[in-house]
Amino acid sequence: MKIPPVKGTRDFYPPQMALRNFILGGWKVASLRNGFEEYDGPIFEHLQMYRIKSGDEIVEQLFSLTDRGGRELAIRPEITPTLARMVNQQINSLPRPIKWFSLPRLCRAERPQKGRLREFFQWNIDIIGIDDVLADAEVIFTTLDYLRSVALTEKDIKAKISSRKLLAELLKNIGIEAERLDILYPVLDKKAKIPAEAFSATLKEKVGDAKIAETILKLMEVDSPEHIGDIVKLNGGVQAALDEVRKLFDLLNTMGVADYCTFDMSIVRGLAYYTGIVFEVHDITGDLRALCGGGRYDNLLKDFGGPSIPATGMGMGDCVLEILLRNKGLLKDDLPTQKTEYFVACLDEKYNRDAIEITAKIRLAGRAAGLGYKAAALGKQLKQASALGAAKCVIIGQEFAAGCIVLKDMRTGEQRNIKKDQFLSSLQGWE
Amino acid sequence: MKIPPVKGTRDFYPPQMALRNFILGGWKVASLRNGFEEYDGPIFEHLQMYRIKSGDEIVEQLFSLTDRGGRELAIRPEITPTLARMVNQQINSLPRPIKWFSLPRLCRAERPQKGRLREFFQWNIDIIGIDDVLADAEVIFTTLDYLRSVALTEKDIKAKISSRKLLAELLKNIGIEAERLDILYPVLDKKAKIPAEAFSATLKEKVGDAKIAETILKLMEVDSPEHIGDIVKLNGGVQAALDEVRKLFDLLNTMGVADYCTFDMSIVRGLAYYTGIVFEVHDITGDLRALCGGGRYDNLLKDFGGPSIPATGMGMGDCVLEILLRNKGLLKDDLPTQKTEYFVACLDEKYNRDAIEITAKIRLAGRAAGLGYKAAALGKQLKQASALGAAKCVIIGQEFAAGCIVLKDMRTGEQRNIKKDQFLSSLQGWE
Repeated sequence: MKIPPVKGTRDFYPPQMALRNFILGGWKVASLRNGFEEYDGPIFEHLQMYRIKSGDEIVEQLFSLTDRGGRELAIRPEITPTLARMVNQQINSLPRPIKWFSLPRLCRAERPQKGRLREFFQWNIDIIGIDDVLADAEVIFTTLDYLRSVALTEKDIKAKISSRKLLAELLKNIGIEAERLDILYPVLDKKAKIPAEAFSATLKEKVGDAKIAETILKLMEVDSPEHIGDIVKLNGGVQAALDEVRKLFDLLNTMGVADYCTFDMSIVRGLAYYTGIVFEVHDITGDLRALCGGGRYDNLLKDFGGPSIPATGMGMGDCVLEILLRNKGLLKDDLPTQKTEYFVACLDEKYNRDAIEITAKIRLAGRAAGLGYKAAALGKQLKQASALGAAKCVIIGQEFAAGCIVLKDMRTGEQRNIKKDQFLSSLQGWE
Repeated sequence: MKIPPVKGTRDFYPPQMALRNFILGGWKVASLRNGFEEYDGPIFEHLQMYRIKSGDEIVEQLFSLTDRGGRELAIRPEITPTLARMVNQQINSLPRPIKWFSLPRLCRAERPQKGRLREFFQWNIDIIGIDDVLADAEVIFTTLDYLRSVALTEKDIKAKISSRKLLAELLKNIGIEAERLDILYPVLDKKAKIPAEAFSATLKEKVGDAKIAETILKLMEVDSPEHIGDIVKLNGGVQAALDEVRKLFDLLNTMGVADYCTFDMSIVRGLAYYTGIVFEVHDITGDLRALCGGGRYDNLLKDFGGPSIPATGMGMGDCVLEILLRNKGLLKDDLPTQKTEYFVACLDEKYNRDAIEITAKIRLAGRAAGLGYKAAALGKQLKQASALGAAKCVIIGQEFAAGCIVLKDMRTGEQRNIKKDQFLSSLQGWE
């Protein structure tokens, strides 16, 4: 019986797995370098958890299941609710600031398309307990530090930065009621994703006032904090939010990543829980979806039954990143899938048993070893050793009658005879 | 709103995550050392896939879900069916032998108990395409190579080895019909797991003949291949299966792990798909469930719609292993959760901005750095640096007026003044 994989999922054969390890490994190294600690939660949570704050789009795309006890569960579509739950559970014993990262596998029942799959990996970094734009700057810096480490330059990508706080103040300033803001955010977030006319029409409909909608459209186009005053009058709330944005850009400049950063009022983020600085990183051509997104979410822990604690974070999926790196020629498709130090080549059947013994002893000494399984001609086995990327080849041939092996350096081609026992005890010494 | 985690799952806070990384990292290193390549599949598959060969117990414990398209899916309870599917899909292009490993997250709706959770990680290694007991020996060797690497000795654990082929020949030999074997295996597998009397009663009932059941009971007690002849007559089929077992033990001896290995006819394995050598590793006291289990499954790829290809493998969960390592004092509960090389301590508020700049530059040079966020007294910050395990502390104090930082070696306590620019360019040099 032949069964296909589930639509929208990926099989990671060794070459694809090496690529996944390259991406997730880079995320991990960048996280640790920036002082984040790793955490993880279960693959499923109570379904109810995602109804609190995840936003309608995510709730519609849940893979839900009912267990034997009749509990409604869902495979995690994002890890932030789990983070909020975990932090709240131990809020009194966790030293602050909490700087955590995670590399969760997530599932969303989306229509599979370019850069979007039903199962993917996402890098998450979060700083909890710092009520200062310095934490937002550190999140953006860490994101860019990773992207820079895989050779993406400021000519390839831009971090587009805005502020929900600033947007809220501006919208209130021009006459939008505070309780209608949560309805407007997902609409504004669609700006770059749908045709300009459709966006404009939807905006007018939702706002209900053509003139206000027009002003909002103008605000969305603003690319410098200094130009906002050209469109609306700056009251105290707007001024305070603007000062925060200016401080953020100043910090990013101090950190040496200003070239990667730009102010962009059209960055809103779809999720309901953002409260301050928000950002997305995009490829400069704009051909792809956002590489990542994040921002400040100061109310989330409270919404999950905990105390009021400031928080800010970022999430980056592996799918769009992989497409961009491939487009830019920054992905090696022949990443090594094995790590062989020694290849043991047996030239004569009568020494098969010895080849097995030597291979086992190399491995027990903590070194990686490959074995040809069957005695074969030297040329064929050296080819095999090369294919495995072995640094050295242990050749068991006629010299073995005198207790010797031939040790060949695969890089230089140099080879020398050495007593088997001497070779094995040299390995023990390295352990 | 406060929502609890799902019963039978684990939250991995940084200390628990460090432990999980220690276990999974060890599995990975042992796999690579023994020449296995990493692969992975999706977290869910078509439900039907697990009905083919996984055995009733696993099918009953599936977490199943229905997607929007009405497809019946299940979270993977084991990865072997995925492996069979993936290998069959590319059977003509994969070079053989296929030596693959995986570290999948698996879910089973079991009653949570000691060493059994609803979500766990499992190390899997498989060798596909070698019809020789050498591959079984290599799987057992790799398993023991890992267990040895975490300091478990032959006084802590034993690999108990038997053969399904041998058992089948013996059962046929004493009058059990071939088509009834698949019903008997799960019964025999229960021997060590239920009281002796209950086992004996169930066996008699299933066999239907008290005398034959008695003989089976005696066979189950056999602890050396050489003692089987004392109980039943050795025909050709039994002899061939015995020769294979003897060859396996001879290979394990050659490989240097014979001390860890013992013959035990009571090892049957519950899963339906085993066809040859089977084994489990147990702690010597017998207090815990099996640490791992595996064996040969030559028909599985064919059962999944592929060609007939020999295969053998092993699976080891993380839960029992963690309990055993903890019992033996082989787990460090204070594994590092961070990897900080430099801690940047700012003693004067007016240099906060400089501290941020220096921290960012250390990180952009590829080195791990931590920052105290707020200026504070030196003693407090050195404490923080120690807590993070930092190797060096960059102190920004009064010397900074002259453009200097103090670099303190946290291990030796030595400290020296150095120009900030000189320090930063030395980092660039190391990159």
